[in-house]
Amino acid sequence: MKIYRLEEFKGPAGLVLKEEAIPRPGPRELLIRLRASSLNFRDGMLLNGAFGPLVQPGVVPLSDGAGEVVEAGDGVTRFKTGDRVMPIFNRHWTAGKRPTEMSKVLGLGAETDGTLRDYMVVNEEAATLIPPHLSFEEAASLPCAAVTAWCALVGQQPLYPGETVLTLGTGGVSIFALQFAKLFGARVISTTRSDAKAARLKSLGADETINYQSTPDWEIEVKRLTGGLGADLVVEVGGAGTLARSFRSVHANSRIAIVGLLAGATGGAGFDFMSWIASTYRTATGSREHFEQMNKAIAYHALRPVLDKTFPLEAAPAAFEYFASQKHVGKVIIRHG
Amino acid sequence: MKIYRLEEFKGPAGLVLKEEAIPRPGPRELLIRLRASSLNFRDGMLLNGAFGPLVQPGVVPLSDGAGEVVEAGDGVTRFKTGDRVMPIFNRHWTAGKRPTEMSKVLGLGAETDGTLRDYMVVNEEAATLIPPHLSFEEAASLPCAAVTAWCALVGQQPLYPGETVLTLGTGGVSIFALQFAKLFGARVISTTRSDAKAARLKSLGADETINYQSTPDWEIEVKRLTGGLGADLVVEVGGAGTLARSFRSVHANSRIAIVGLLAGATGGAGFDFMSWIASTYRTATGSREHFEQMNKAIAYHALRPVLDKTFPLEAAPAAFEYFASQKHVGKVIIRHG
Amino acid sequence: MKIYRLEEFKGPAGLVLKEEAIPRPGPRELLIRLRASSLNFRDGMLLNGAFGPLVQPGVVPLSDGAGEVVEAGDGVTRFKTGDRVMPIFNRHWTAGKRPTEMSKVLGLGAETDGTLRDYMVVNEEAATLIPPHLSFEEAASLPCAAVTAWCALVGQQPLYPGETVLTLGTGGVSIFALQFAKLFGARVISTTRSDAKAARLKSLGADETINYQSTPDWEIEVKRLTGGLGADLVVEVGGAGTLARSFRSVHANSRIAIVGLLAGATGGAGFDFMSWIASTYRTATGSREHFEQMNKAIAYHALRPVLDKTFPLEAAPAAFEYFASQKHVGKVIIRHG
Amino acid sequence: MKIYRLEEFKGPAGLVLKEEAIPRPGPRELLIRLRASSLNFRDGMLLNGAFGPLVQPGVVPLSDGAGEVVEAGDGVTRFKTGDRVMPIFNRHWTAGKRPTEMSKVLGLGAETDGTLRDYMVVNEEAATLIPPHLSFEEAASLPCAAVTAWCALVGQQPLYPGETVLTLGTGGVSIFALQFAKLFGARVISTTRSDAKAARLKSLGADETINYQSTPDWEIEVKRLTGGLGADLVVEVGGAGTLARSFRSVHANSRIAIVGLLAGATGGAGFDFMSWIASTYRTATGSREHFEQMNKAIAYHALRPVLDKTFPLEAAPAAFEYFASQKHVGKVIIRHG
Repeated sequence: MKIYRLEEFKGPAGLVLKEEAIPRPGPRELLIRLRASSLNFRDGMLLNGAFGPLVQPGVVPLSDGAGEVVEAGDGVTRFKTGDRVMPIFNRHWTAGKRPTEMSKVLGLGAETDGTLRDYMVVNEEAATLIPPHLSFEEAASLPCAAVTAWCALVGQQPLYPGETVLTLGTGGVSIFALQFAKLFGARVISTTRSDAKAARLKSLGADETINYQSTPDWEIEVKRLTGGLGADLVVEVGGAGTLARSFRSVHANSRIAIVGLLAGATGGAGFDFMSWIASTYRTATGSREHFEQMNKAIAYHALRPVLDKTFPLEAAPAAFEYFASQKHVGKVIIRHG
Repeated sequence: MKIYRLEEFKGPAGLVLKEEAIPRPGPRELLIRLRASSLNFRDGMLLNGAFGPLVQPGVVPLSDGAGEVVEAGDGVTRFKTGDRVMPIFNRHWTAGKRPTEMSKVLGLGAETDGTLRDYMVVNEEAATLIPPHLSFEEAASLPCAAVTAWCALVGQQPLYPGETVLTLGTGGVSIFALQFAKLFGARVISTTRSDAKAARLKSLGADETINYQSTPDWEIEVKRLTGGLGADLVVEVGGAGTLARSFRSVHANSRIAIVGLLAGATGGAGFDFMSWIASTYRTATGSREHFEQMNKAIAYHALRPVLDKTFPLEAAPAAFEYFASQKHVGKVIIRHG
Repeated sequence: MKIYRLEEFKGPAGLVLKEEAIPRPGPRELLIRLRASSLNFRDGMLLNGAFGPLVQPGVVPLSDGAGEVVEAGDGVTRFKTGDRVMPIFNRHWTAGKRPTEMSKVLGLGAETDGTLRDYMVVNEEAATLIPPHLSFEEAASLPCAAVTAWCALVGQQPLYPGETVLTLGTGGVSIFALQFAKLFGARVISTTRSDAKAARLKSLGADETINYQSTPDWEIEVKRLTGGLGADLVVEVGGAGTLARSFRSVHANSRIAIVGLLAGATGGAGFDFMSWIASTYRTATGSREHFEQMNKAIAYHALRPVLDKTFPLEAAPAAFEYFASQKHVGKVIIRHG
Repeated sequence: MKIYRLEEFKGPAGLVLKEEAIPRPGPRELLIRLRASSLNFRDGMLLNGAFGPLVQPGVVPLSDGAGEVVEAGDGVTRFKTGDRVMPIFNRHWTAGKRPTEMSKVLGLGAETDGTLRDYMVVNEEAATLIPPHLSFEEAASLPCAAVTAWCALVGQQPLYPGETVLTLGTGGVSIFALQFAKLFGARVISTTRSDAKAARLKSLGADETINYQSTPDWEIEVKRLTGGLGADLVVEVGGAGTLARSFRSVHANSRIAIVGLLAGATGGAGFDFMSWIASTYRTATGSREHFEQMNKAIAYHALRPVLDKTFPLEAAPAAFEYFASQKHVGKVIIRHG
């Protein structure tokens, strides 16, 4: 089978396409024929060695994939051959508010080999069914970004119809957060840096958009659009660059979801701790249970993920380069053979 | 001002229309000019003395009303003259999962004088603003039935898009539960006893309806419609008459909201405790916070309550008689002068 | 290795002691050398065929066991050889409020082969470490009864110091609930049928005991002991026989934990639905996360489970008979070779 | 009656002792004869004008007081003359996770006149009973610091026996947090700057203390004391000065309670957002319901607050000066006439 291994931490050039034997499933394991995979921000970081010794050379990148079960090991009860499935991001987190073993939170394609290959074996507890109306390409966009977005919306407290959600930019998590917030009946305000992207966000359901280049003090606009009150929930993906404004965009009963690795590096000079009026929670993708709740919502509403561009497996390095250029709106997909 | 007092517990005939002086607000109190009020199941019970010594003769009935602030007492900060407001059902329950003093849970129009009069005084903590797009008649339908329905949906656990909610019949709580569940993006299955009512429920958003007269084993149909799994949430208003079937309509992760006084009297012979697989929670209207969450959703979605028939204040006894005949779908309203 | 299989559903007489080969662990699996196991109420039911076709003849009984890891399969990261471990009751429930697959809730020793044998293989996700201060016999008492008790106390809402917990009788779940409630700083009222057992309950920390034979209306005494308010939490193990009284022992903000299979059979004639003032939740053992929370508490407080009598593996049928006689206070243990 | 008004924002020198008429209670209001009051950090800030235009000159300082009901207005049902009561800090927050009107969160003695006087009137919803075993002086220490500590422990998630709580220093909130955490059966690690204070903390129940002067990298010691895992909960009162270390003292499933106004001013240069692994929640005192939960725990365990020094009402300015010197361990109390 075809498989990519990251032999050196030097960006897409470190990826080596190999031929390896198809693995066999052990007890309670599934052999999945992967049909598509997708890229996330952290995958680009990983190729450049951002995780240091936590990731070993030779790792198979990418956490997100979709395919079908071609063999079920002894004692498998959750799936059968032919089922269309996605592996979950963090195999140790099947349910509960937080992963139980955070030391292993790096997940698929980092802590263990990921989806950039034709076949993979996972424990049956670490996979979930694809909503019936989705293609493999669409399904491959869900495991990391969509589950993170779902968990950002409801991981700590429920989201109610009529509440206001603020999303930042047009990254994968932000777009899914927008789409899901609309399923909950929430109002969505989205920031973006171009009017073209603003139009796209509106077509996806955003009630209001704010161009943060023409309106750098966008937090003032958020307050104005909410009658002075502020947003009820911020899906904060900007970290050091935006957090101070996010805190000024909310009220004291709001929550701010601090999304994973996007949250920038060192920074925060001049952060005013008196402005820390809201509660925050650090997201960490989400559990299989979150994934399944999300799939139920996606299936009932026949929601379709936003896909940008699809590359063949052989062109995986080009997909990484395209992703790094940040021209995409929606997910960048790799179609397997 | 005009005011009804229930002089004897003998049904609508016990209501006496009187002329009394307009009360004055004390510190932190509001004087409200009531423009409309509405009836609930418990109000009919109350007229017939169902609450025994908990309710005193001479009480002013009805918990639900809407009007405008005509005078604000010293130190009022939440409202100003001219604000359109509704009193809350349980003046002691401003927030929190459960009322803090359940001994006083009977609420407005039972524990204390209610809304069947032209003016009333309430503490400013015990009132909330009317969503701007609603008339006084529509607003008067909210405080008891709508808040109870909201709390039945989210009082214990969050409700997610794609989850299945089961409502029983076409009473006020059930119809609001249907409307609100749709705002949350949930799927709704509603039972009813006639095809005409089924059509009405569908027009309000029900995904599926079950005629419980032609399908007395409706729990089997609920299971079938959910792929054998069962509903995720039941808004149980039938009590002894339906509870055993409700338990058979769900799965072990479901919740069953046991709605207040509708839950029948003694019964339950043959109840199979092995079927008690789901968690239940007894609703008790809801807090002012629930009321305000609900209003935010109603306002954003411009949702309109379903009104059935409106009576003038002078015909309040006729309104009670009409309500008792159970011909209505939606709320029965009394319009004040 | 020695292993018991239940060849026929005819009580302890259906148990057959056999010699079988020691199994081998697959990927991410552990081979455990079991040193002790313990009995629960449901195990006696199972021997008599109470679960019908859900349990197959030939099953290895008992859910509760403790031992040491003697071999770790490929890719195991949670444990190493020599670790002292206990298998979890429901291998599918690692975290979250409720098991995600309730159809498989019967757990170890019913749905799959249990602990009444010298060696067993489990997935590494389905085991947890033994608190260091406990013997294998003590540890073997925890997986079902103790986790169920823990989950009954905190599975739905937090338990606070100074709250009043009501326990019924001296079964395994009730005694653990008493011990754990004291760790939370709660007040405990325990019912029992004899003064000797009452003394034992007091020595374990019960603040008050009520003899339900001399005080059959024990709910009145619970109200009296709580200043008329009622208990804040009931660990309800009596089902049809006690539920009506439990509902009369509480207030409207209380919760009643309905414990699993103990909850009797059909019954409930004359159940007054107007008394259904509290919320209930059906327990289902608990997750691995609950188990680990509990172990943390047990370890910090050096709490010791109450053991009654220990039998050698060869005398397992006698252990079942002793257990069925209901003379025990505390757990009945089987010591493996 | 004697009453202090803060005529100018110039520290204790701005306090003027006056003679004013005893106020009268309106409907549902209580007249309380105050017997004691106590000081908090924010009171010293207030005297120096730290809240700007949010606080008006002439305000009566102090949020914390205790006394007895000497007159109950019309319609009062929660209390009767002679009841020993404490006003709640935030009269708008009777229950719920967060105050419903944060704009009014400054509370008693800032937003409205406080307790530094002989008599005050409060709405009956804004008071709660004193635990029977406490003196007025002890009770006067509870409304702000103790409720804040309680809410820091359980305001967001439950606290379990065996979990590790980290407290910082010997301020009022930290000491109450230590005492309450022990009631929950938790393990407590406390930092402090002197060995004498460390001994005091141990006598109050601290399992471990860390001298942050001799061990400036105290977060490393916290990790060591928890087997490398980190504390489960931090009661963070140091703000800009300690937050970065607090984040390094925890694991990803921990929570950090950011306590109110203590959280320093602008700062945070070099804050590493990658270290933001835990969830935070900003405390805001707590609700009346939190207060009552806490009182139940205090009463059952007969817990006594730690009092430092008591001043007569006439010496209130001296009490403020003593408090500002930071020599106290425990609460500084003012005894009224």
